[in-house]
Amino acid sequence: FISEPHTVGVVTVPFSGGQPKGGVDAGPIELLRFGILDQIKGLGYKVDFSDGVDQYSSLKPKSDPDVGKMKKPRFVSSACEKVKGQVEGHCKQGSLALTLGGDHSIAMGTISGSAAKYGDQLRVIWVDAHADINTPESTESGNLHGCPLSFITGIAKNVAPFEWLTPCLKPEHLVYIGLRDVDAGEKKILREHGIRAYSMHEVDKYGISKVVEMALEYLSPSNDNPIHLSFDVDALDPSVAPSTGTPVRGGLTFREGHYICEAIHETGCLVAMDLVEVNPLLGDQTNLYQTVTVGCSLVRCALGETLL
Amino acid sequence: FISEPHTVGVVTVPFSGGQPKGGVDAGPIELLRFGILDQIKGLGYKVDFSDGVDQYSSLKPKSDPDVGKMKKPRFVSSACEKVKGQVEGHCKQGSLALTLGGDHSIAMGTISGSAAKYGDQLRVIWVDAHADINTPESTESGNLHGCPLSFITGIAKNVAPFEWLTPCLKPEHLVYIGLRDVDAGEKKILREHGIRAYSMHEVDKYGISKVVEMALEYLSPSNDNPIHLSFDVDALDPSVAPSTGTPVRGGLTFREGHYICEAIHETGCLVAMDLVEVNPLLGDQTNLYQTVTVGCSLVRCALGETLL
Amino acid sequence: FISEPHTVGVVTVPFSGGQPKGGVDAGPIELLRFGILDQIKGLGYKVDFSDGVDQYSSLKPKSDPDVGKMKKPRFVSSACEKVKGQVEGHCKQGSLALTLGGDHSIAMGTISGSAAKYGDQLRVIWVDAHADINTPESTESGNLHGCPLSFITGIAKNVAPFEWLTPCLKPEHLVYIGLRDVDAGEKKILREHGIRAYSMHEVDKYGISKVVEMALEYLSPSNDNPIHLSFDVDALDPSVAPSTGTPVRGGLTFREGHYICEAIHETGCLVAMDLVEVNPLLGDQTNLYQTVTVGCSLVRCALGETLL
Ligand SMILES: [Mn+2]
Ligand SMILES: [Mn+2]
Ligand SMILES: [Mn+2]
Ligand SMILES: [Mn+2]
Ligand SMILES: [Mn+2]
Ligand SMILES: [Mn+2]
Repeated sequence: FISEPHTVGVVTVPFSGGQPKGGVDAGPIELLRFGILDQIKGLGYKVDFSDGVDQYSSLKPKSDPDVGKMKKPRFVSSACEKVKGQVEGHCKQGSLALTLGGDHSIAMGTISGSAAKYGDQLRVIWVDAHADINTPESTESGNLHGCPLSFITGIAKNVAPFEWLTPCLKPEHLVYIGLRDVDAGEKKILREHGIRAYSMHEVDKYGISKVVEMALEYLSPSNDNPIHLSFDVDALDPSVAPSTGTPVRGGLTFREGHYICEAIHETGCLVAMDLVEVNPLLGDQTNLYQTVTVGCSLVRCALGETLL
Repeated sequence: FISEPHTVGVVTVPFSGGQPKGGVDAGPIELLRFGILDQIKGLGYKVDFSDGVDQYSSLKPKSDPDVGKMKKPRFVSSACEKVKGQVEGHCKQGSLALTLGGDHSIAMGTISGSAAKYGDQLRVIWVDAHADINTPESTESGNLHGCPLSFITGIAKNVAPFEWLTPCLKPEHLVYIGLRDVDAGEKKILREHGIRAYSMHEVDKYGISKVVEMALEYLSPSNDNPIHLSFDVDALDPSVAPSTGTPVRGGLTFREGHYICEAIHETGCLVAMDLVEVNPLLGDQTNLYQTVTVGCSLVRCALGETLL
Repeated sequence: FISEPHTVGVVTVPFSGGQPKGGVDAGPIELLRFGILDQIKGLGYKVDFSDGVDQYSSLKPKSDPDVGKMKKPRFVSSACEKVKGQVEGHCKQGSLALTLGGDHSIAMGTISGSAAKYGDQLRVIWVDAHADINTPESTESGNLHGCPLSFITGIAKNVAPFEWLTPCLKPEHLVYIGLRDVDAGEKKILREHGIRAYSMHEVDKYGISKVVEMALEYLSPSNDNPIHLSFDVDALDPSVAPSTGTPVRGGLTFREGHYICEAIHETGCLVAMDLVEVNPLLGDQTNLYQTVTVGCSLVRCALGETLL
């Protein structure tokens, strides 16, 4: 799906409005500082970073009172609308869109963007400890990084102030890997909509290799659908990626995380990737180093780096 | 096997007489302090904690000299006899008996108690780094937490001062998972009695999912036998459950430990569970937090908590 | 292949000339201090340690300028020639040759030594994060511990000052396990010579049990070839074996490392083993303890220690 010469369109989203902890907006800067752009070039890609590091802060509304339980809904909405435009642009140019977050609310933008190009053919693999599929009604915290998939799939309908957002992903075109902290309301949503989810229980039961195989077979039996990979670093075990806002024990190992990315690369169908929830302000320097380097190497593996 | 409404009968055994280190008697208090009772209620069970936190200290004999190599034999014997009565009571009321230790010697009481209700139908899954099947002759340390299964199976016969204890478990009705530090004398016992054991070598060879499947198939091919799960937290790797008296490297991961509990819950046949060898005095506050929270979540998984 | 009474011929090689970091020459001393000889005797072997702890320092040439990119080539060459003689001696006496390094350059000596006895029948299993198969031309660092396999296989030909070394291992008689940091030049060599390699990606894909099974089946379908196991502790994850010169994340777990050794022992065909790259000067006392104890237990497992 990606045009020659293979180009990675990089979208940096220094945004933390979808959750309460400061610092996740500094994630993209750290990934850049650790050399992610050069690493991508080292794999033979052209890098299109023409958007630069947008601070997004200009989008912050003067006043942004809660709408129902939703916190900072206007700020999240305008940030995601902007992200959508950037990702859509890269996809329409035939580039692979790589979005560096930022909290996971921005996936409302990234998936809207890739779906604008690939439409109903698009398939999404969501690697996360969390399901991020609360509705404005079911959410307990009101943090919108826990909600993007209910908006994208249309399970939450006509939510103001997200008028720009059109549901663009059928629930059956989504698959989860790594879940282990799912709210009761989310469990109900997953069941009612028959959404395919491989929790850590399934990773232990079948092994990561079989899980990825089943996920890909489910999403695209003929391996001919464009794939958007949305990777939340908290899918990894906290011992692997400690600098993140909502760590949960019992996560993917370093190797399992990379295996997922390698196997998705092998499909030849990856068209967009999000790497989100790297928060450099959480933990010490060692934690930061661990988390950012693992983030960079996940991206490299998704883009084709191999061990042999 | 459990009557409606599903009830968990909780037996707390603040007992450390089966081994030399202080602190394991504080295990139950910490598990309670971390909210294990409310967590069980949260899963929809009634909780019967009518026995309260018995200090067991009143059972301590004035004088308790070694009998052969056995240390504190009278204290261990009376504590286990009391535990037996409590577990038997809960089982006969149709409750699931949950025993919070305390050191593993108390399993002489818990299995005697569940066997008093379920007789020859009972099957035991012993999750442990150690085999705990030394006889009074083969034990090197004389610590009785290393011996309960020789008493329960009758491999050690007519041991004074354990006159109250009748062998109640055939060696072929027992299966181990997680072994990795087995004494030479115990290896001989396991071989001579053909006891089914899945050491960490088998966990690596087959994977935890297959190991649990084989263990359950071996114990109860028609999945119709009541199961007693005796879970020593030292089965987990020390990086997962550091606050325990005899840690051994190369143990079960956080996820493998939970997988075992989840799979046993799925049989619908769990009638009793022991969680033992949590020692809050070993390690720092982080270690304690890790160990007690993992203990709580193992119990929740055995009682039906799922990730999805 | 080993004569009765089973004897382990121990070769200690306190040598660090194949790489720049001091300390790896103290590896053998620490392994001895932690009781590796008594542990081997405890498994029922005779130990032949008649060579004693040779300091190798007498072999250091007064002047040893680089040859091409190769650093300390004369020192490495004479050390390896001496190692070859020692290993050859043990093998020809029917003993299992156990070499305790030292850096991995010494495998030029150990494999030359075992091949002197077993010839074309010899098979090599190389467990390492690295491929160690750079040629004097492809090496970037010039450190010879990254080159031994190109010399042994004859991929690097007629290298002065290694005139004593005759290529003695066909590339198809070698298999790797654990690779995850392979230079571009090495990847090319592996591909061109069709060398069988199981990287961490394959360990994740198939599981360690299947990987070892495939490796053994590939090397010796009838399980009748003598096996030389060359184990670099950096194959293990740095969390398992931190005291080593070139650690790489995402390595073998404690259990996978032991599984490899156990499975190779079960073939009954192990004739030589190297344990290399333990560097006691790297890390703190806990790291040292971890690394040396894991080194000792890998050796014990390869020599037949079992969990049950
Ligand atoms: Mn997320
Ligand atoms: Mn998450
Ligand atoms: Mn135990
Ligand atoms: Mn134990
Ligand atoms: Mn090496
Ligand atoms: Mn290495």
